[in-house]
Amino acid sequence: MNQRFSYIRKRHPRVDGEDKVTGKTRFLTDMKVEGMVFAAPVYSSIPFGNIRSIDKSDAISDPDYISSVFAEDIPNENQVGVIIEDQPLLAKDIVRYIGDTIGLVVTTSPEAAFLISKKVRIEYVEKKPYLSIDDSKQATDNFIHDNNIACTHQVIRGDIEKGFQESDIIVEETFRTPYQEHYYLEPQGCIAIPEENDRMVVYGSLQCPFYVQKAVCKVLGLPYRNVKVIQAPTGGAFGGKEDVPSEVCARTALAAKGLGRPVKMGYNRYDDVQLTSKRHPFQMKYKVGVTSDGRLIAAEVLLEENAGAYATLSSVVSYRATAQAMGPYVIPNIKVHSTSFYTNLPPTGAFRGFGSPQATFGHERMMDILAERLNMDPVEFRLKNILKPGEETLTGHKLHVSVGAEETIIRARDSADWSQNRNAPRKEGRYVDGIGISTSHYGNCLGAAGWHMDGSGAKIQIHRDGSVFVSFGLVEMGQGSLTVVTQMTAEALGISPERISVLPTDTTQVPDSGPSVASRVVVMTGNAIRDAAGKLMPVLISAAAELLKTKPEQVEIKNDRVREKQTGESLSFDELTEHLFVSNHPMVADGWWHVPELNYDQEKGVGEAYFTYSYSTHIAKVRVDTLTGQVKVNKIWAAHDVGRAINPAGLEAQVEGGTAQGIGWALTENFRIENGKVITPNLSTYLLPTAMDVAEVETILIEDPEPEGPWGAKGIGEPAIIPTAAAIANAVTHAIGVQMNEIPMTLENVLNQLNRSIETDKNKNY
Amino acid sequence: MNQRFSYIRKRHPRVDGEDKVTGKTRFLTDMKVEGMVFAAPVYSSIPFGNIRSIDKSDAISDPDYISSVFAEDIPNENQVGVIIEDQPLLAKDIVRYIGDTIGLVVTTSPEAAFLISKKVRIEYVEKKPYLSIDDSKQATDNFIHDNNIACTHQVIRGDIEKGFQESDIIVEETFRTPYQEHYYLEPQGCIAIPEENDRMVVYGSLQCPFYVQKAVCKVLGLPYRNVKVIQAPTGGAFGGKEDVPSEVCARTALAAKGLGRPVKMGYNRYDDVQLTSKRHPFQMKYKVGVTSDGRLIAAEVLLEENAGAYATLSSVVSYRATAQAMGPYVIPNIKVHSTSFYTNLPPTGAFRGFGSPQATFGHERMMDILAERLNMDPVEFRLKNILKPGEETLTGHKLHVSVGAEETIIRARDSADWSQNRNAPRKEGRYVDGIGISTSHYGNCLGAAGWHMDGSGAKIQIHRDGSVFVSFGLVEMGQGSLTVVTQMTAEALGISPERISVLPTDTTQVPDSGPSVASRVVVMTGNAIRDAAGKLMPVLISAAAELLKTKPEQVEIKNDRVREKQTGESLSFDELTEHLFVSNHPMVADGWWHVPELNYDQEKGVGEAYFTYSYSTHIAKVRVDTLTGQVKVNKIWAAHDVGRAINPAGLEAQVEGGTAQGIGWALTENFRIENGKVITPNLSTYLLPTAMDVAEVETILIEDPEPEGPWGAKGIGEPAIIPTAAAIANAVTHAIGVQMNEIPMTLENVLNQLNRSIETDKNKNY
Repeated sequence: MNQRFSYIRKRHPRVDGEDKVTGKTRFLTDMKVEGMVFAAPVYSSIPFGNIRSIDKSDAISDPDYISSVFAEDIPNENQVGVIIEDQPLLAKDIVRYIGDTIGLVVTTSPEAAFLISKKVRIEYVEKKPYLSIDDSKQATDNFIHDNNIACTHQVIRGDIEKGFQESDIIVEETFRTPYQEHYYLEPQGCIAIPEENDRMVVYGSLQCPFYVQKAVCKVLGLPYRNVKVIQAPTGGAFGGKEDVPSEVCARTALAAKGLGRPVKMGYNRYDDVQLTSKRHPFQMKYKVGVTSDGRLIAAEVLLEENAGAYATLSSVVSYRATAQAMGPYVIPNIKVHSTSFYTNLPPTGAFRGFGSPQATFGHERMMDILAERLNMDPVEFRLKNILKPGEETLTGHKLHVSVGAEETIIRARDSADWSQNRNAPRKEGRYVDGIGISTSHYGNCLGAAGWHMDGSGAKIQIHRDGSVFVSFGLVEMGQGSLTVVTQMTAEALGISPERISVLPTDTTQVPDSGPSVASRVVVMTGNAIRDAAGKLMPVLISAAAELLKTKPEQVEIKNDRVREKQTGESLSFDELTEHLFVSNHPMVADGWWHVPELNYDQEKGVGEAYFTYSYSTHIAKVRVDTLTGQVKVNKIWAAHDVGRAINPAGLEAQVEGGTAQGIGWALTENFRIENGKVITPNLSTYLLPTAMDVAEVETILIEDPEPEGPWGAKGIGEPAIIPTAAAIANAVTHAIGVQMNEIPMTLENVLNQLNRSIETDKNKNY
Repeated sequence: MNQRFSYIRKRHPRVDGEDKVTGKTRFLTDMKVEGMVFAAPVYSSIPFGNIRSIDKSDAISDPDYISSVFAEDIPNENQVGVIIEDQPLLAKDIVRYIGDTIGLVVTTSPEAAFLISKKVRIEYVEKKPYLSIDDSKQATDNFIHDNNIACTHQVIRGDIEKGFQESDIIVEETFRTPYQEHYYLEPQGCIAIPEENDRMVVYGSLQCPFYVQKAVCKVLGLPYRNVKVIQAPTGGAFGGKEDVPSEVCARTALAAKGLGRPVKMGYNRYDDVQLTSKRHPFQMKYKVGVTSDGRLIAAEVLLEENAGAYATLSSVVSYRATAQAMGPYVIPNIKVHSTSFYTNLPPTGAFRGFGSPQATFGHERMMDILAERLNMDPVEFRLKNILKPGEETLTGHKLHVSVGAEETIIRARDSADWSQNRNAPRKEGRYVDGIGISTSHYGNCLGAAGWHMDGSGAKIQIHRDGSVFVSFGLVEMGQGSLTVVTQMTAEALGISPERISVLPTDTTQVPDSGPSVASRVVVMTGNAIRDAAGKLMPVLISAAAELLKTKPEQVEIKNDRVREKQTGESLSFDELTEHLFVSNHPMVADGWWHVPELNYDQEKGVGEAYFTYSYSTHIAKVRVDTLTGQVKVNKIWAAHDVGRAINPAGLEAQVEGGTAQGIGWALTENFRIENGKVITPNLSTYLLPTAMDVAEVETILIEDPEPEGPWGAKGIGEPAIIPTAAAIANAVTHAIGVQMNEIPMTLENVLNQLNRSIETDKNKNY
């Protein structure tokens, strides 16, 4: 790699690795605060109905009972909806899903909390629940909220009628993607500590400390200045700790405020799975027209999402799915419409990819179906339509730079030996092999729908001993951000990473930096670090010039040395910082960056949906056991245009992790709900892929620098999972010759498809 | 008071008052951390000697024993001297006073810690100790350190020989001032919490979090970035928590690091009094020459200080006493020499006034003696020589503005009805009345000796809801700084104090801001707040101008409203901050201020010793019971030039508190040590003045604005105590006609003086 950089583009070990591996890290789950007591939720046992009465007497008579809170105990607003105000903090009259939280009991131990929460007797008047999108859609009264639609979005561009008229081939198809449970290792948890002067300190296992701050303020009626949220080391999140911790923490804070003492609430796994949000199940209708030589002309896409009982983040998940519904291809005429439907099921919300894996499943299956109809190689067909610099995305966003989509396809194709694998003999006894491709684009950061909160901060403090700390407003949740923040700070200051510590994220350290989602951390924080360093460097350089008796432009700081460029005379970074200290220079700077303003027509869904895009192509090679239906992914070639790889090692880990999660979603994770109750609440029923199930992953890094990104970088956290499932489905389709338009491709489902295919096409030879 | 200000110059209730009064505040003493264990010091029981052996076996065999640390366990430097590196963290070979700390034991409870610490058996080879200044001075070998002198200072200006030749009257006199014990309500205490990644978090009852950070880093060999110090609510300090907490916290952190778990150490009162620093006892020789018409011509001053076993802050206490040794008078020829002598007694160090109350006792007694010799009224004599704008201090610092010394004398004189009280009949049976005056100047902040660390920071964060928090690097220790910081922030931003919270002081919030001493808080933090607000206001104003469709210069923010000055159109501050939030403006700013550079010749002690001075005059009216020797202070008129009164109510509280402490030092507090052991370690032997002993205080505020001070303000915390004791001694002298050249004026001492006076002058009529 190029020598322009000292500390980025280097494979840096995780700075939090040793403590995590050796068990020193104290996750929220491990944390104890003197005098704390323990809460557990009291929640609805029916999917839909009115609360007739709440009887606490049995709970109260338990010697371990300390207190309880219900809706009437909320001093300010009983509202915790993150975008749409449709979600009470504590259900008062109506319950809308099994898990809808009605109250909290506080007790002497976590075990007692769980047991006593069950002693609160609630009587209901049950209503007929809506348990699917189709149920919900047909409602004419007895709505879940004012009506059953959580939100809608659309993109209308070009002339769709004319487009289909001009098409030589038009294909229509329906696709379905299922729930996915985050299954972070550490369930939701929070400790709320009331302090003097009406202050509240909240520690949580969370992604978005500023969301929690807002929720606690709203519910308790406190000013922002009085609520400090600190992210505890967090054992995984994947979107599942975006908005949900706002509920968990605001409820815990309510109980703590009432008691005037610290309260901890940690969900057990069962409750966590039943109560908290999942990935939205999508049903998608695609109608796409192409010319006979394989150019995309028109597409009409209908997306329907199961939002569950509350909207939570549906509106932005759906915004993203809509804006990316036809992938990174040039398509002049398009109409996308999406609707999220309320159901009496656990809410669905943020999950790695945020609607993109679903939409990508749709457009990438469609691309393969079209290629087959065109009798074209799927790679060739994609390359013919792929977005290039100077062209427009499906929302009409003209792109000029950092459009590495084509390169991801070419590099993945070449690495995977595509032609050979695609055309080689694919059968070996009961096993058949297949190879499939999937390409995707991912709008970085929050996009036009969230521009008003798409700014982030970082603070750098240089000490007299030449050691440095950095604070940032986003978080480490397992993805490696502490390491890249360290590297980027080192690069910006010209000092080694060993000098740098990153402080735990704390809402008093930097201004509201928005959520740690949407692959924002590198882009937002990297730019904020550059901004802060840009304020510090002139001070450092000018003091150094004075000490070295030269002009500032003759000074460079590199590898911990402060050097006169011509004479080579130098001093150590410590000498410089000690000098700055004793000459009364405060070596602190706040950095900030916000996404450039976006020109987007929200009504039509046309314009700059996001400021830039990451591109990815996954090629999956699979082997299908036609006897058992088992799909084994042998290898995934994952080509990602990330603009710039800050930490190639961390990036590969992200890609490997995302791919594994994609494999799980595509194949083994079969989340099931019956009558509103999750029947796969644990690892014996909900099958996360094990080490044996995940594939070898070959990460192919493509760096097509984004001028607005720090050192050219774009996001990777979410792109890592996005194309995987579609690539696998395309590979299975290639292997068995049956269109796999629905996941998960469990053994049963694959066998069913195979059987159906044998039924309908006795000529095929399996 | 003038209407220019909205929130300063107003009597603001203490923002921390309610929580302190209602017992909600959790002082360090009250704090508990999950899993913490308890330490107590093992210390020398002899005043001077070598350690022969340390036998821990009895301690270790106690079931409550957990661990112990001694010098050999220190991973880095065994050094905690704050200015001179003469003080080991843990005594290794030599012990230098009873209380010299040798180790720590860690146990299961505070009670066990105390008991088990006594089970460590230490054998010594005793040496002959030095138990007074005079003892120490005569040493020729067997020195306490390399020699017995901790430090020396001088001022040499003009021609002292010529000055005395030109004098008509020359008076020589010796004065003595005693120890004073801080007797803060809360003894020293600390909790050290080791964290992942070699980080250490320290909570302490302290004045100087950055000193503690430095000490912990030095002893443990950690970089600054890894040590975070948070000031816990602190139950009084008065200088006693300037440097001492560095020892306490570094020792506790050492024990915590060894164990890998939180350790708390809280001194009991007996240990606190025996181990920690006090006010330096001074002996002072003054030789002063005046013309027959009462102009000061020459002064030679010899100051000798008892530094105790370690220098601690002696060097800067002595610097201040030397630079202020002849008070706020014009005197062309001067020579001051001061020496701090090591003794085998508890160290002496910082105590409110920092050498000034001692020097003021010297020069103000001397002024009265000279006035008597000149047959002039003491007020008239002072006014004749008082420093005025355009004149030079005794170090030759020419002052132009904010020199309110003369006004303090005039206003105090007039308020006290001086002439009447001075000349009226003064006897009533066995009681005699007297009135005395004392005037002083106090160099603000650290002065030339500490300029290299005389900078301070503040951070302001404005939230979207229009609430604000401020962080600052100095502390609240009872003096009311949270309230003035709130008021100053409100004034700087034009919003009401109710919108503002001040965060607990924490070394990660602002850069090293130096110590909370030397009456620095208002001056340093106020200027830093103005600096931060100066960065925020243009952003606020410009956004407001946009919203109000006007020019920035037409916008004002006042009393929570944002107004177009001409049209009167306005919006609320919240509307403005919400707008700024959604338009991606980070509303945070770091402020910084450092004292202007000082031109001072350290060798000769000539030049700008401090950047500005606070002035004060106290007049005390006393009644002496000639039968019992009891002195009752009936009233003190306390006139203070503070530049600008930020919170007149808090300022009066400072003056009343300082005066009470001055009364204690002058009269009742008789700190006694026998053979190195404190024999007045509690309130039954060390008599703090009770509510019955303190006088009525009439505070007279004089505002002669200092252009460099925030809104013109100068410091008050230390000036409050400085002139009190001398005023009382002058009043007692006036009452009984005997020169009271030594304090404390306990009943016994007053009777002794009276008797001696009767012996030597049978003509006087008592």
